Amino acid sequence: MMPNPAEKYRPFPQVRLTGRRWPTRTIEKAPIWMSTDLRDGNQSLIEPMSIAAKLEFFEMLVKIGFKEIEVGFPSASQTDFDFVRKLIDEKRIPDDVTIEVLVQSRRELIERTFEAVEGARKVIVHLYNAIAPSFRKIVFNQSKEDVKALAVEGTRIIKECAAARPDTHWIYQYSPETFSMTELSFAREVCDAVAQTWRPTPDHKMIVNLPATVEAAMPNVFADQVEWMDRNMGYRDSIVLSVHPHNDRGTAVAAAEMAVLAGADRIEGCLFGNGERTGNVDLVTLAMNLYTQGIDPGLDFSDIDAVRRVVERCNQIPVHPRHPYAGDLVFTAFSGSHQDAIRKGFAQRVPGTVWEVPYLPIDPADLGRSYDAVIRVNSQSGKGGSTYLLERGLGFTPPRRVQIEFSHAVQKVTDTSGAEISGEAICELFRREYFDAGGPVSRVDASTLAVFGRRVAVSPAASAASGDAYARTVAAALDVDATVNWFETAVTASGDTAAFVGCRVGDGPTRFGVAVHANPALAVADAVVSAVNRSGRIAQSVESVRQGQDEAALEA
Amino acid sequence: MMPNPAEKYRPFPQVRLTGRRWPTRTIEKAPIWMSTDLRDGNQSLIEPMSIAAKLEFFEMLVKIGFKEIEVGFPSASQTDFDFVRKLIDEKRIPDDVTIEVLVQSRRELIERTFEAVEGARKVIVHLYNAIAPSFRKIVFNQSKEDVKALAVEGTRIIKECAAARPDTHWIYQYSPETFSMTELSFAREVCDAVAQTWRPTPDHKMIVNLPATVEAAMPNVFADQVEWMDRNMGYRDSIVLSVHPHNDRGTAVAAAEMAVLAGADRIEGCLFGNGERTGNVDLVTLAMNLYTQGIDPGLDFSDIDAVRRVVERCNQIPVHPRHPYAGDLVFTAFSGSHQDAIRKGFAQRVPGTVWEVPYLPIDPADLGRSYDAVIRVNSQSGKGGSTYLLERGLGFTPPRRVQIEFSHAVQKVTDTSGAEISGEAICELFRREYFDAGGPVSRVDASTLAVFGRRVAVSPAASAASGDAYARTVAAALDVDATVNWFETAVTASGDTAAFVGCRVGDGPTRFGVAVHANPALAVADAVVSAVNRSGRIAQSVESVRQGQDEAALEA
Repeated sequence: MMPNPAEKYRPFPQVRLTGRRWPTRTIEKAPIWMSTDLRDGNQSLIEPMSIAAKLEFFEMLVKIGFKEIEVGFPSASQTDFDFVRKLIDEKRIPDDVTIEVLVQSRRELIERTFEAVEGARKVIVHLYNAIAPSFRKIVFNQSKEDVKALAVEGTRIIKECAAARPDTHWIYQYSPETFSMTELSFAREVCDAVAQTWRPTPDHKMIVNLPATVEAAMPNVFADQVEWMDRNMGYRDSIVLSVHPHNDRGTAVAAAEMAVLAGADRIEGCLFGNGERTGNVDLVTLAMNLYTQGIDPGLDFSDIDAVRRVVERCNQIPVHPRHPYAGDLVFTAFSGSHQDAIRKGFAQRVPGTVWEVPYLPIDPADLGRSYDAVIRVNSQSGKGGSTYLLERGLGFTPPRRVQIEFSHAVQKVTDTSGAEISGEAICELFRREYFDAGGPVSRVDASTLAVFGRRVAVSPAASAASGDAYARTVAAALDVDATVNWFETAVTASGDTAAFVGCRVGDGPTRFGVAVHANPALAVADAVVSAVNRSGRIAQSVESVRQGQDEAALEA
Repeated sequence: MMPNPAEKYRPFPQVRLTGRRWPTRTIEKAPIWMSTDLRDGNQSLIEPMSIAAKLEFFEMLVKIGFKEIEVGFPSASQTDFDFVRKLIDEKRIPDDVTIEVLVQSRRELIERTFEAVEGARKVIVHLYNAIAPSFRKIVFNQSKEDVKALAVEGTRIIKECAAARPDTHWIYQYSPETFSMTELSFAREVCDAVAQTWRPTPDHKMIVNLPATVEAAMPNVFADQVEWMDRNMGYRDSIVLSVHPHNDRGTAVAAAEMAVLAGADRIEGCLFGNGERTGNVDLVTLAMNLYTQGIDPGLDFSDIDAVRRVVERCNQIPVHPRHPYAGDLVFTAFSGSHQDAIRKGFAQRVPGTVWEVPYLPIDPADLGRSYDAVIRVNSQSGKGGSTYLLERGLGFTPPRRVQIEFSHAVQKVTDTSGAEISGEAICELFRREYFDAGGPVSRVDASTLAVFGRRVAVSPAASAASGDAYARTVAAALDVDATVNWFETAVTASGDTAAFVGCRVGDGPTRFGVAVHANPALAVADAVVSAVNRSGRIAQSVESVRQGQDEAALEA
């Protein structure tokens, strides 16, 4: 049994916010994206990336369209230092991309950081210190004044180092760490003191980044916190307000989106939500969520599988099969009613119009994914999935009544195996069931069938218009009491005729026959053969004929 | 490049809701949980569960504390039918657990469903039909009146079937499918017509379940939709308002939580977020999110790894390493500053008080998880992680200056290997670095050391109080110009003395020595030996002594 939580945990306090605005707003444009894959993401890996892996990742981020990339914590790791130097020395940073480096508030670390980025065109220097009560108390044993002074002092040193190197365009970023668990008024006080020291202007803004270092409250509470800061902090018109949500409660994507409603201009996160513990907010999901609302995210995931491969290789962490937009199973429907709806949505789709396929919030093609995995069939599937796969495999759509009949054959296979059945296996099953049904009737040549070995002439003279009549003629010629009670044809993708016949033998139930042939008359005749052979009644007749032969043999 | 989304996708419309209440509320108690793992979860698996797997899963759900469990779609699958019969015939359903079965609005399916649950004590019969515009238009080619009539007709048939079987306690549930994409006024109209047909009362409520069949909008919009229904639907006091969020935008957890703020009484979902495409909302995360707010979720995940094992085996889908609460990496810190904070949080923790360990939103022990994985060390780690692992492995905490010195040795190893280093390897490295430093000084016996082979008497007479003085005595006795400039001792977990000595040889830098011994005097003497041997200066002396010997040999 779990311990009583009321003794060990406390509800997160509400934010006192009157006239809350964010719930009435919508997102109209993409925020500024900052990828911290190479820093926050990298530091959370079991085996951090090599310089080669970092480089591959960096180049992919550039290709996707990121304009701000945190490349490391060079004063804390030699690998990071060397990587940053490599980027700069080998001129690998495009002109429109700004690198960012993290540093703590200590002179020697700041100086080492400036050494790492020496010669870069444009750099965001990112200072952080923890200001939340539990950190002040437990970790540093510092007063509010102490942590504020530390932030201001770091800012001052960075300002001094930046002023001494005028050839680089310096942007300053400050993160009041564990913002989400800090008294709001104190967070503002620290940020104001930092801004007061840096003195940003509307033309040369600084970044104030609010981390949900640990996600500790519902996303609406985080939005309240961000709106409070947006409304109350100083220098607001000279500040890019940024957020850095983690995913401990599984709501980082929502928190980031609501923070944008609440006034955030910028989001820090990682691809597919890598990062400390439960990860940073997933920038792929955020970008694609905007995309499906008709808003250009400014990030290109049109080959999401290629992105995924690089990330999986560098991080050595798989993307989950149900990960939004990128997982293996997220465009797959096994359920019959879902499949049926998707099939109809595709069939009615007019290119160039608004996307509206049931159960598919986005066109998989926009992510470079194929439609192959969209419909997969197992014992939970009805006729919709099978039909879709038959269409793709055989080039024609069986009529509804044939679909229903065939779905029982599929169900029998999947209920028995307990497993998925592939499109190929479904087509094979269909061929076995209808084309090669076997039985007492067979074709001899274009104008001759055989019934129990007896030859029957059927003149192959059917047009599409007279197919129904021809089917009845063929059935009658067989002389096995077969009645055609339904008939349809279709043209296959390759231009052949597919003929469908419903037929009763004696007073037995209707069975369906299907055949495909370039010659419409032969398609019809073969469909009658298929239907008659599939009848249980005719099978019994076969049996009695055989018994008759056996008896005759005995008497002989 | 991705196509221009504005041509293909439309923003989700806002809900016109004045005086919105949900953002001002907090969650005070757990909602009713309904697990649909065996239905919605199962239908989305590549290989649906066998009856044996379903049974194991069902029994686990009961053990966790679920009181409502959707056990299948018996009219659509023979496996589901057989499983439901097995549960009932073998009396496997506890008295306080209600099973639920899904059905479409067709008489033969409803009758088959009642056949499946015949003899059960209490059953939720769950009818659904799709009512959203895209389904009316694309899938069914039906008018609003048609889909409403279908819902009412299904309700009527279920009412008739239930009335004919008075021995079972019947609860009726209706889901207006794809609610989240339906005109709100029409969703209300259909739900009202259904309720009007069923006629629930406050004493015998029906369930109205609002599915976000496909998650198509931000969670605040879903909350607006739910609040609108909560305020406007009829029979509200006779209805349990339920939600069924999917995770296509990665915000299902947030959507479910905000729906509760907006008036939902009940949540349908799956363990670890299994379900169609991106999955149903994850009930584990929802429950634990409540738990960390001091609210008893009524679900017991105190052995979350055992739950995870069963789910992974039955679903054959892994839980992601960063999955909240349950993933392998979610309680792990590799980063130095995080490790340092966690270590201090643990050290200062007073049992029985409110949980407040930095970076750990929940005590891993509450989930039955060990602290072993909390701190792991790689090249991104500073001294905090190593220190924590040393504490656990060696039974004492090296003083801060020793931690800093040792962290360079660790950094060197991890920067070179690029890999994680285990706790065992860290302790081994510490032993090699300090206990077995090697060099010109060594112990002969309790009162004798050897320096460059020359014997030195050191009377072992140190108490803890005079340890500092004794260290200086030993250092002086060595006659190698060694000065002790810092000294500390600690008692190890097993009661031995750990001695720490800072020492300079000549004008070289301070090096630290560490030794552990049951006899405090020997610990001190060995720590001096360790420090002196670790000095670069003395190593040079060794070299010059050796050279001197060589020269002497040449002269000889």
